[in-house]
Amino acid sequence: MPTTKLSVNKLAYSLAKKLCDNADEYGVTYKKLASGTTVIDAGIEAKGGYAAGKIVTEICLGGLGTATIDFKHYEDLQLPSVFVQTDFPGVSTLGAQFAGWQIKAEKYTAMGSGPARALSLKPKEIYEKIDYEDASDVAVLVLETSKEPPQEAITKICEGCNIKPENLVLVLVPTSCVAGSIQISGRIVETGLHKLSELGLDPKTVTHGCGFAPVAPVHPKLAQAMGRTNDAVIYMGTVYFTVNGDDDEIREILKKAPASASKGYGKPFMEIFKEADYDFYKIDPGLFAPAMFVINNAASGKTFQAGKINVEVFKKSIKLQS
Amino acid sequence: MPTTKLSVNKLAYSLAKKLCDNADEYGVTYKKLASGTTVIDAGIEAKGGYAAGKIVTEICLGGLGTATIDFKHYEDLQLPSVFVQTDFPGVSTLGAQFAGWQIKAEKYTAMGSGPARALSLKPKEIYEKIDYEDASDVAVLVLETSKEPPQEAITKICEGCNIKPENLVLVLVPTSCVAGSIQISGRIVETGLHKLSELGLDPKTVTHGCGFAPVAPVHPKLAQAMGRTNDAVIYMGTVYFTVNGDDDEIREILKKAPASASKGYGKPFMEIFKEADYDFYKIDPGLFAPAMFVINNAASGKTFQAGKINVEVFKKSIKLQS
Amino acid sequence: MPTTKLSVNKLAYSLAKKLCDNADEYGVTYKKLASGTTVIDAGIEAKGGYAAGKIVTEICLGGLGTATIDFKHYEDLQLPSVFVQTDFPGVSTLGAQFAGWQIKAEKYTAMGSGPARALSLKPKEIYEKIDYEDASDVAVLVLETSKEPPQEAITKICEGCNIKPENLVLVLVPTSCVAGSIQISGRIVETGLHKLSELGLDPKTVTHGCGFAPVAPVHPKLAQAMGRTNDAVIYMGTVYFTVNGDDDEIREILKKAPASASKGYGKPFMEIFKEADYDFYKIDPGLFAPAMFVINNAASGKTFQAGKINVEVFKKSIKLQS
Repeated sequence: MPTTKLSVNKLAYSLAKKLCDNADEYGVTYKKLASGTTVIDAGIEAKGGYAAGKIVTEICLGGLGTATIDFKHYEDLQLPSVFVQTDFPGVSTLGAQFAGWQIKAEKYTAMGSGPARALSLKPKEIYEKIDYEDASDVAVLVLETSKEPPQEAITKICEGCNIKPENLVLVLVPTSCVAGSIQISGRIVETGLHKLSELGLDPKTVTHGCGFAPVAPVHPKLAQAMGRTNDAVIYMGTVYFTVNGDDDEIREILKKAPASASKGYGKPFMEIFKEADYDFYKIDPGLFAPAMFVINNAASGKTFQAGKINVEVFKKSIKLQS
Repeated sequence: MPTTKLSVNKLAYSLAKKLCDNADEYGVTYKKLASGTTVIDAGIEAKGGYAAGKIVTEICLGGLGTATIDFKHYEDLQLPSVFVQTDFPGVSTLGAQFAGWQIKAEKYTAMGSGPARALSLKPKEIYEKIDYEDASDVAVLVLETSKEPPQEAITKICEGCNIKPENLVLVLVPTSCVAGSIQISGRIVETGLHKLSELGLDPKTVTHGCGFAPVAPVHPKLAQAMGRTNDAVIYMGTVYFTVNGDDDEIREILKKAPASASKGYGKPFMEIFKEADYDFYKIDPGLFAPAMFVINNAASGKTFQAGKINVEVFKKSIKLQS
Repeated sequence: MPTTKLSVNKLAYSLAKKLCDNADEYGVTYKKLASGTTVIDAGIEAKGGYAAGKIVTEICLGGLGTATIDFKHYEDLQLPSVFVQTDFPGVSTLGAQFAGWQIKAEKYTAMGSGPARALSLKPKEIYEKIDYEDASDVAVLVLETSKEPPQEAITKICEGCNIKPENLVLVLVPTSCVAGSIQISGRIVETGLHKLSELGLDPKTVTHGCGFAPVAPVHPKLAQAMGRTNDAVIYMGTVYFTVNGDDDEIREILKKAPASASKGYGKPFMEIFKEADYDFYKIDPGLFAPAMFVINNAASGKTFQAGKINVEVFKKSIKLQS
């Protein structure tokens, strides 16, 4: 499969323009900084919500995937959920949506995701794996944050992308708001492909992907919000990939792919985090994976399924009172 | 949360224009009366259907919510259903969609819903509760009726809204057609928020809402059609709200919120109506509520669930033969 | 219900234009032949996918129905699925989507479906049944094929439709790709209406229809791909129709409608095909029907249900390894 010539930044820029042009309907606000950079608030002071969460997810995907909100059924639970589909899984998820660019300046730190990464090539090895680089004079970066970045951070982003400040759009979205919760569950396909890729599957062989996960109910505290949004993917998310691969390789990889194959699996993320002394590096990175994988090997016609959802842990995670 | 400055009438007017511009595809007809008022038939003589039902629901919501048709799973039943989401629950449902304006003239009576109410302020206390009034020189009203209203009724509507007749759009939709059935099940979020509001929850604290209910199979007789469309919400509907509230208050309110907490619950609405000698005022108003509520308190992070669906009553209601 | 005056070819032509204008995003390629005919590749050399599958399905429906991709729940299976709805079931499915035009030329054979049939009237009796003929100077035909048709075949199509070669758009989609699998499962409403019509129900009495079926995982071999896409409808598909009919007639017809009422039902299609010595004419044509039917008789208000899904056979069909 040849890599696409489409520009994830140009596509996302159109979506960001639509978001600004209809800011009131989306419940977002935006402003132009002195430097010309556009900053969109999708949930800090702004109320954001379902519509904002959907379009921010699609911006993260570089316009090469769609997100849809709907209720889904999980055993005895019914929850608003996000369904994501993409015909460009490598480029849209690893090349754009993956939160792979840590933005640091002064006392400010935030994880950057979205298409701007395909200009700054953060991290470079991903772009070699997916054989994609963007060429664009505009850039869009999504920051999971509840604070506006200082100018120093913005300057670094522009330099990293080699673009003019006025051609940069930043979308700010905290974890602890509805749009933030949606855009994290909307990483379900990315989380699945990233795990498969870490386990050795060549992402260029993955031609199509889709998946869904519940939108975690919001929590006002950042750590708790982060915990339950992780749990939405880890305990409740399902992904489906079409792959041109080898049955034996897929079978072996799938044994280790679901979150349940990882150390620590089985309790809300916050408990695992606590037991790791709040140190991310002590947590098994394999835990960041969907609950369930289905892979259709287009080369053999076989369909592989691994993992399952775990409603009980998620009920604890969201403090369900019933 | 500040109330929106968006105009529900202007947004709905755009949707009504789209409906007229594509009348054949939507299966509707429309005409201009001598007075200049536009009257859209979405299911009297016109065939209407899924597409019409969706857009009429969105018109009712004043353009500040979306409706999607899809199959949903209810235990052993699979039924076409409508999913509604809104980032403006108070304004779109209580301020527009709620059927709160009774239109009476000569021998004509019909319940009016939709954004025109936000100009005539029917009833006034709702607009105080949600802190919203529309300012618009166009108005859209949806009438649940199988007859075109007389000019006297239309004149009253224009006077109530203080708009010119040529700036009024009326959408007529009977209960006993597919579009009518959709737009009633499409009131699921409104029914839920109305009940919570009646129980004392401040609708301004409800920031986001979504829900779904099956589209009741149509029935040619008005009373039966009304009965089963009510049952779709009462026995099968689920709503989900994000609220900035108090856990104890939410817990107490939720005890009384689901339809099952009301007197008379447990049989098809038509039987309840019959036992009440066909007098609406003898029916517990608390019955008009979704089967199931989920509330996420954004202030505490807790998630509350109450009620459950009742497939057996709905099967009786729709006269399911299997 | 009067038959629509809308042109399925003009509507589908707009969709085909959108497909070409955004070919890269849809993962398709297209070219103009010397004769001026436009040929779109939606999955032969092109990668196609979910977005292409959706729009090709809508092109097949002559623009008078919509297709949506989403995950659906089938007992213990979760699979990407296609949901189709139409307010013009007779015209869009029997009059356009039905694969009723066999294109033959030299050594080339392919089944043609889509709106061009409503110009060539293939087969004529269907157009009498639905009381529809298209009048259009453009035509769109979908060919289920993995080879580009020879000019002789294209000339025959133009002659059959009585249009100029430059006004013909051909969409090529093999069974063994994601878009091809989607567009076959997207025939769920057509398959249901065709079966009802064969059993004697007048399709003009069917006012609205919707349904869903899983997207069969792809298989590289044509026969196997064909087998499992058939199984997606036969063992897993559900349809819902609104009909103005007679309760007794509907009840009788429904006894024979689900695929399970047919000879051979109960094993993957490939096994049935093998037992029939790979001769389609030895297979009970009644097998080509959805697993489950729900019919709402709008004349009586009754709701009829027949058939059920069969997850076990489908698991075998898609070679599910778990």
